[in-house]
This record gives sequence, C-alpha cells and structure tokens, in this order.
Amino acid sequence: MIQTPYLLFLGDAPDQLAAKVAQGIKDWRPENAVGQFRMDGCKADLGLEDMTLAQAQAAGAKTLVIGVANRGGHISQAWKAVLIEAIEAGYDLASGLHNLLNDEADLVAAAEKHGRSLHDVRIPTVDYPIASGVKRTGKRVLAVGTDCSVGKMYTALALDAAMRERGMKSTFRATGQTGILITGEGVPLDAVVADFMAGSIEYLTPDNDADHWDVIEGQGSLHHVSYSGVTLALVHGGQPDALIICHEPTRTHMRGLPDYKVPTMQAIRDVALSLAQVGNPDCKVVGVSINTQHMSEDEARAYLAKVEAEMGLPAVDPFRHGAERLAEALEAL
Amino acid sequence: MIQTPYLLFLGDAPDQLAAKVAQGIKDWRPENAVGQFRMDGCKADLGLEDMTLAQAQAAGAKTLVIGVANRGGHISQAWKAVLIEAIEAGYDLASGLHNLLNDEADLVAAAEKHGRSLHDVRIPTVDYPIASGVKRTGKRVLAVGTDCSVGKMYTALALDAAMRERGMKSTFRATGQTGILITGEGVPLDAVVADFMAGSIEYLTPDNDADHWDVIEGQGSLHHVSYSGVTLALVHGGQPDALIICHEPTRTHMRGLPDYKVPTMQAIRDVALSLAQVGNPDCKVVGVSINTQHMSEDEARAYLAKVEAEMGLPAVDPFRHGAERLAEALEAL
Repeated sequence: MIQTPYLLFLGDAPDQLAAKVAQGIKDWRPENAVGQFRMDGCKADLGLEDMTLAQAQAAGAKTLVIGVANRGGHISQAWKAVLIEAIEAGYDLASGLHNLLNDEADLVAAAEKHGRSLHDVRIPTVDYPIASGVKRTGKRVLAVGTDCSVGKMYTALALDAAMRERGMKSTFRATGQTGILITGEGVPLDAVVADFMAGSIEYLTPDNDADHWDVIEGQGSLHHVSYSGVTLALVHGGQPDALIICHEPTRTHMRGLPDYKVPTMQAIRDVALSLAQVGNPDCKVVGVSINTQHMSEDEARAYLAKVEAEMGLPAVDPFRHGAERLAEALEAL
Repeated sequence: MIQTPYLLFLGDAPDQLAAKVAQGIKDWRPENAVGQFRMDGCKADLGLEDMTLAQAQAAGAKTLVIGVANRGGHISQAWKAVLIEAIEAGYDLASGLHNLLNDEADLVAAAEKHGRSLHDVRIPTVDYPIASGVKRTGKRVLAVGTDCSVGKMYTALALDAAMRERGMKSTFRATGQTGILITGEGVPLDAVVADFMAGSIEYLTPDNDADHWDVIEGQGSLHHVSYSGVTLALVHGGQPDALIICHEPTRTHMRGLPDYKVPTMQAIRDVALSLAQVGNPDCKVVGVSINTQHMSEDEARAYLAKVEAEMGLPAVDPFRHGAERLAEALEAL
C-alpha cells in the first residue's frame, strides 16, 4: 500500500499525454494529489499548484509519484537529482515504469539510508494464494471488454464514483499499474505468476458488507489471444455478480493483432456470462459502456440508442454522459 | 533443454507411487532411461537395471533425474551425498520438486566447481514473448479437460505415440513438470508470468512442416476457477486445429473445489471450441478421452459407447484400449 497523499512528479514530460498517469490520479483521486512538480522544459500541466518538495511536504505529501512516461517508459537520469532529494527529504517514491526504482542502485542506496520505500507497482509484493473458489460475501461488478484498451478502467472508476455519489458502498479495485497508482493499492495482474492469478483477485476482493460493491478493473479480453488468460482469471477470481460489457465501435481490428477482428458485444456477453456463471450462477450482464471518443455527439447518441435496443441493456458512454445509469442498474439488482 | 539419456534417481522412495515421475519417463521415453539408482530402503522399483553412477555413465547417462517425490515434495538431506557425488562425476541434475536444486547451497557450489547444470523444471528459464497471434504452419492438437487431473498428459503422450506408430509426424509438447522431465524440454506454464502465458505456448509450438502435429499437453480446465486462465492461454497460444475432450466420469466435484460440480463434456466442448475458433476458425473437436480407471471393463465399454453416441465422436480410454482411434481421427482431418 502506497502512502497518500502524493506530490505528482511530471519531470520533463514532452507533452500532456506523457503525464496521463498523473492526470488519472488528479481526475479520480484529487484528494490524493496535493500538487505537481515540474522540471525545466516540462510540457505537461495538470492545473495543480506547482510545488517544491518542501512545500508539498508541508501540505501533507508522503509519496512522490512518477506520473510521467517518457519514450520507452524508463526512469530518466535527468530525474535522478530530484528523486534522490525527495528520498532525503522523507518521501517514498512510486512508479509504474518498465524499469524499476528498485533496480537503480543510487535510489536503493538513498532509500535504505533514509528508511524510505520504493514502490514499483508493476511487481507483485504479495505471495498470492491459489484461488479457493469459496463464495465471498458482498457484491462485485467486473468490466469485460471486446478488446484491450476500450475504456474498462475508466468505466470502473466512473461507475465507482457514480455509485458513491448515490450513497452506495463501493470500492474501485485496481488490477493494473495506473489504477494502482491512482488508488494506492491493487494487484498488478499481468505480472502475477499463472497459478496465482485467480487467487490474487480473490485476495483483492475479500468478504465485505452484503450491500458493498467491489468495482473490479478489467484487463484484456476473452477474445484477445495474447491476454485472454488474464481476463478469465478476473472472471473466475472476481466471482462477479454483475458484468458490464465495454466496447469501442470504430476499432478495425484487435489491438496489436492486425489479423483479428473485434468480436461483437453479443459474443463477449455470451462467453463472459457463461464462464462467470461457473463461479457465480447468479451473475448477470447489467449494462454496456461504449467509448464514443471517435464519434460526434449525434453519432454517439444514435449509436448508444441502437445498442440499447439491440442488447436490451442500458448503454452509456461514461466519459461523455456519466455512469449514473450503470450505477442505477446495479442498485436495482 | 535437459541432456538425455538419464539415470533415474529413486532415492528412498516410500512406495511405488512416490516414483511416478520416473515411471512416466520409463513408460513414455524408455530410450531416455538407462537405469535406476536406488538407496537403502527404497520401496519403488521400475524394473530397470540398478546401476551405480559409474555404470550408468558408462552406459551413456548424462543427467541424474530426481524421479521421486517424498512427502511435501522436498529435496531430502538424505539424498545429498549421492547428488553431490553425481555432480562430481560429471552428471547434470534435474528436478521438478517444489524446493529448488538451485536454492541448495551445497549443490550450487558443486555444480559451479564442476561446470554442471542444475535444472529446476518448475522455473521458466526463457524470456517468453507476448503472443503475436500470427498463424503458424503445421498442425496442433490440444487436450482440454472437464477438470484438472483427468488424464490430459497421459492422453497427449498416448496420442503422440499412436501417431508416430502410424508414421505420422508428431511431437509431444510438455506444459508441466512431469512432461518436461519425460521429454527433456517444455514450458512450465503454471509458473510463467501472466502476460507471457500465451506467448510461451506460441514459443513451444513454432512453425513446422505442414503435415507435422504438435500434441500439446493440457492444463487445468476452462471451468476450474483456480486455473482456468492457464487453460485459456493454451487454447489461444496453441492455435489448435483439433481439440480432444478429456473426462473422468466418476468424479463428484472439481478437484480441490468441493462446491463446484464437474461440467458436462458438452459444456466444455462448446466453450473450448468457440474460444479456440477465435485463434483458428478451422478448429474442430475430434474425439473424447475417458479415464475409466474406476470402472470395470464392462462398465467402461458401455460408458464409452454411450459417450460416442451422444457426442458423435470417437470415445476411447487411451490407457485401457490405446489411442489409435484418436490418431485416426487426426489423420482423417
């Protein structure tokens, strides 16, 4: 578990997109972000107050989060002076980059000397159990996609926010690097050893109040041949009571797989539901989340109406129009 | 890759069952087993010649394989003198036990000193790629089960043998510890990191002659909630042209999951085929392998006839009656 709140390190981000992890934290857990730290030449700006290490610490910051990805996703030597100064000042560091804070000898030495923690959220730090399949108390909803990167994390975060807005008990459960940095905890599922995948999701979503919902971040797709095993571990480890189908209608092929067509929402609904009912016979598909970013407002409205009629389920773009109708569907369950 | 042939180390096996890894090697790759090494008190006997380290070496043995599992699956201190003597004599060691040869300081020191290899087949030693999904040449058949431990490895080994007997080109592809020790190579799939599972199976079953079959050892079950993700990685990474459904009809619940019923063969056929056709639209289910070990000969014959009629597919117990009809079905494809 990463100590919050954070100072968001944007470094020398070449553009706004490079700071998307920091943006996600600011958008979804603004209470976790006391300010931003930008180096000379930084081209990203979250609209947060620019702070020195000392100013942010005075405002309560406990962890400096690397919220920027440069080309290749590596820790830049240009950042080192700031990172080491932060450790010396008493900050923990957290990163989701490919190369690890814990592989940088100078950072490790500084952290040891000052008794600070280096959190590499790509690496599991828990010995997860083998999944037991035992039914847990509380409720769970899982976002399942027709493809990778169709908006499953966004859908889950928006749904969690909408549920809490309605006064429902809800916890977003992160299963990827960005989600873990946003909330400060979770399971880096793609880095878990095969035998323990489903068990890691049981660990992530334990017994809870009968009216509490875990909103589980989805990964991959049951039809994405590179990552489908990870997705099925979520379907079985998560024991979902409800599924939300996520889709991006303008995609021409599966992400990274030019020879593979994107499946229909109906195909994913059928295979996901039949597999989910192995772990939870009462599981239901309750809604559809469409990523309409490449459509005009009129196109989006028309497409959503068509999907809603065809699927017989509420169909929304949570980014464009909010996730309230999905939250309502869960409340009605 | 483990150097063959082997001397099979049975140690102080408390009974015949404890030597089942060695038995598998002797049954399926007798050419890999030059003899057996038994310590005082060993209660297992493979019917191979008892040899000293020197005798087996003279007969060509390159690797001493730990073919025995004692309680807890650990490397016994009682074995150490023999293991170190073997290393000093020029043997490599290979083991599929839970604790690792490479974690035993005395074995590691001896192996370094004498330039020998310690193979722990539970641990991946290859950096597998992310699966590309690109169609490969050659043909592949995968055993899929209604449950774990229903005879998938046995089915695949028997099928491979029957195909080669018919003059077909066939290679058994191991995905578990025992299979890897039997053949000397393979992927320890349950220990592979989630993101690379399907890629490891692509790596295991590369381009081949158009008329060559990879016979891929199955793992888990699409309906076993603890391991289903591993199974789906086989279905998608393996790109099978053919599936064989494996079932054990007397089991009352899923292995290790007392609250879970065993699915029907039809349910597994339908979900496995629809998911396999994502990666290979031409995939077909070609046969059924029934583990009838808990049935009399009459019961087994009657049950197989019933399954054959219901499924419209050849149904055999490869242990009891051979795998020829499954090999024929693949040849006819």
